[in-house]
Amino acid sequence: MKALVYGGPGIKSWTEVPNPKLENSTDVIVQVDTTTICGTDLHILKGDVPAVTVGRILGHEGVGTITEIGSAVTSLAVGDRVIISCIKSCGHCVNCSTGLYSHCLGDEGASGIGWVFGHLIDGTQAEFVRVPYAENSLHKIPEGVTDDQAVMLSDILPTGFEMGVQYGRVKPGDVVAVIGAGPVGLAAIATAGLYGAATIIAIDLDENRLEAARGFGATDVVVSGSADWKQQVLDLTDGAGVDVAIEAVGVPQTFSMATEIVRPGGNVANVGVHGKSVELHLEDLWIQNINISMGLVNANTTPMLLKLVAKNKLAAEKLATHHFSFDQFLEAYDTFSRAAETKALKVVISRA
Amino acid sequence: MKALVYGGPGIKSWTEVPNPKLENSTDVIVQVDTTTICGTDLHILKGDVPAVTVGRILGHEGVGTITEIGSAVTSLAVGDRVIISCIKSCGHCVNCSTGLYSHCLGDEGASGIGWVFGHLIDGTQAEFVRVPYAENSLHKIPEGVTDDQAVMLSDILPTGFEMGVQYGRVKPGDVVAVIGAGPVGLAAIATAGLYGAATIIAIDLDENRLEAARGFGATDVVVSGSADWKQQVLDLTDGAGVDVAIEAVGVPQTFSMATEIVRPGGNVANVGVHGKSVELHLEDLWIQNINISMGLVNANTTPMLLKLVAKNKLAAEKLATHHFSFDQFLEAYDTFSRAAETKALKVVISRA
Repeated sequence: MKALVYGGPGIKSWTEVPNPKLENSTDVIVQVDTTTICGTDLHILKGDVPAVTVGRILGHEGVGTITEIGSAVTSLAVGDRVIISCIKSCGHCVNCSTGLYSHCLGDEGASGIGWVFGHLIDGTQAEFVRVPYAENSLHKIPEGVTDDQAVMLSDILPTGFEMGVQYGRVKPGDVVAVIGAGPVGLAAIATAGLYGAATIIAIDLDENRLEAARGFGATDVVVSGSADWKQQVLDLTDGAGVDVAIEAVGVPQTFSMATEIVRPGGNVANVGVHGKSVELHLEDLWIQNINISMGLVNANTTPMLLKLVAKNKLAAEKLATHHFSFDQFLEAYDTFSRAAETKALKVVISRA
Repeated sequence: MKALVYGGPGIKSWTEVPNPKLENSTDVIVQVDTTTICGTDLHILKGDVPAVTVGRILGHEGVGTITEIGSAVTSLAVGDRVIISCIKSCGHCVNCSTGLYSHCLGDEGASGIGWVFGHLIDGTQAEFVRVPYAENSLHKIPEGVTDDQAVMLSDILPTGFEMGVQYGRVKPGDVVAVIGAGPVGLAAIATAGLYGAATIIAIDLDENRLEAARGFGATDVVVSGSADWKQQVLDLTDGAGVDVAIEAVGVPQTFSMATEIVRPGGNVANVGVHGKSVELHLEDLWIQNINISMGLVNANTTPMLLKLVAKNKLAAEKLATHHFSFDQFLEAYDTFSRAAETKALKVVISRA
C-alpha cells in the first residue's frame, strides 16, 4: 500500500510500504477512505516530537471501512464504515474507567498515553491502518453522514468541545472568548452553544478566520493585533471579563491573553499544544478565583457529537475547505502548511 | 478603645484610637472578644500590601458580641455572639448571588473584593470593630462553641476547605497531598475527609509541623527537604501521582512541586498567597489533563463548618496553640512571627 511516511525533520514521502497486519486479537484493519492533516503533523515534520521515529506513517484522523477483524472483536464486522478516533482506549484501565482515554494505560505503543496513531504506532495517512483496541477506538457511522463530516470527529470537534467547552465549564448565559480561530478554535466556537453560551467572542490576528468564525457561531469578533483588543473584549462583557477564555493557539502570548480577560470566578481552558513554558502571574491571579484547565482530548464525546452531526445540528463539513485525492497528498500538505494564504481550515484527502 | 495599628512597613503599635461608629444602616458594631493573627498580617507589616495605609487597624479574624446595630439589620441583635467572617458580602451583587463572596461588588472599602477588614477598612485586632453588610458577614455562634473554635472559622478553616478541598475537587477515595502544614494547610488536611479522601499526605520542611499534621488527619507525611521527597509521594500512590495537590505556602517552588506530583486527570489547588510569578511548564503539562485552581476564600461554607465544630466533628480548637490577652498583643505577634521556633500554629488573643 501507499502511505505518508516521516523521514526525519523536514522529510516526508507518499510511498510504498507493507500493508498492516492484525497483531492482537482486539485489533482491526481499516481501509482508509478519508483522512486529513493536523497542525500536530506539521510540528512532527519540524522535528518537534522526538518520540516520532523515522519511518513512522503519520496521521491520527480518519474514516474508513473495516477489512479484517481480530478474534476478540465482536461488536464490529468487516464492511463497517467507521470513524477512527485519534485516541486509542483499552476501555479497561483505571483511566479509561473514568473516561480519561487520553491517558489510557493499555499496553499499545506506550502505556500512559491515548494518542498513538502517527506518533507511537503507524497512523491514518495511509491506504490501510491497524487500529488497536478497536471496539473502543472506532465509531460506526450512521447512514447519511458524509466522510467530510465524519473525519472532523476523529480529533478536531471533540478536542474543541472537550478541552475547550467542557473543561472550561461553559454554562448557560456565559460569555465565552476563543483565542485562535483555527480548526480547533472553530470547533470550540461551534460547540459552545451546546452548554448555552450567550456570547461567543472569536479573537484572532487573521480577519479571514474571524469571518469564518462568524459562520461557526461567533457572535462577536476581535482582531487581536489591535491596540485595544482587551478593551473590546471587556466592552462585550459587564467590564469584569469573560466567563470562559479558551486558548486554542499554543504560544505563551495567547495563554497570557486568556488569563488577562477572564473574570473572577471564571475559567481559562487551554486547548493549545505548547512547546514552551509560560510565566503565570500568580501574584495577580491567586486572588482571582479562576481555574486553568489543560489536556489532551479524551474523545469520549465522539458518539454524542456524531449524533448531532447526523441530525444536522453541527455543520462539521464546513471545516473541510480543500479536497485532494491520495496521490495529491504532498500537495495537500503544502496547501495546509500555507493556511494563512490558502485560507485552508481542514484539508481532506480521500481515496479516489 | 485600643487597637493594633499599622504604622508603615515594620511598624505597629497597640494603641488608643477612636471607637468605631455605625456608618451605614446595614452595619453593626461588634465588641471583639477574641481575635488572632494571620500570615497575611505579617506580609502587610513587611509592606507587601500597598493598599494598606498607615493608621489602618489590622486583622480580619474575630469573635465578638454585638453592641450596636444599624437600622436595616433585622436578623441580628445587640448581645448576639458572632463570628466575624474575613470576607464581607453584600449578599445582593452578581458575585454574591453565586456564592463568590470573595469578589463581592458591594460598595464598601472598595468594590470588587470581599476582603476588606484590616486591608481597606479597619479590622478586628481591636476592642471594637464596625462590620459592614453585617447580616451576611456575621454568623451567630451556637451554645457550646468556644472562642478558640469559633475564631478559626473566620478565615483559616474555610480557606483550607474551600480553596483546597473544594476547588481541588477532592472526591471519595482520592489521594490528597497538602504542601505546607501551616494553619491553612492543616485546615485542608482536617477537612479533606469531608469529601472522602482516602490518603492525606502532608508535605513540609518542618518535622514538628508534620507531627501536628498527623493530629489533624494526615495519613502519611513527607519531609520536603529530602532528596527523594517526590518518589516518597509517588510510592504512596499507584506511581502515577496524587489526585489532588494542594499548595498552601505561596512560593514558586511549592507551586511547582504541586504540578510535579499531580496525576493525569488530577487537580492542583493553589491556596497560597503569592508575591511573585511562577514558571508554568505548559510544554509538559498541556497533555496532562490537569486543572489548576486558585482564589481568595468565599467563606460561604462557614455556617456548614460551624455545624461540624458544634457537633465535635472538627477539632478547630487544636489550631489554637498559644493564648494572650489584648495587652499582650505585641508579644502575640512576636510568638507568631517566630512560629518555626515557638511551634505556634494560631495565636489567640482575647479580652481579659
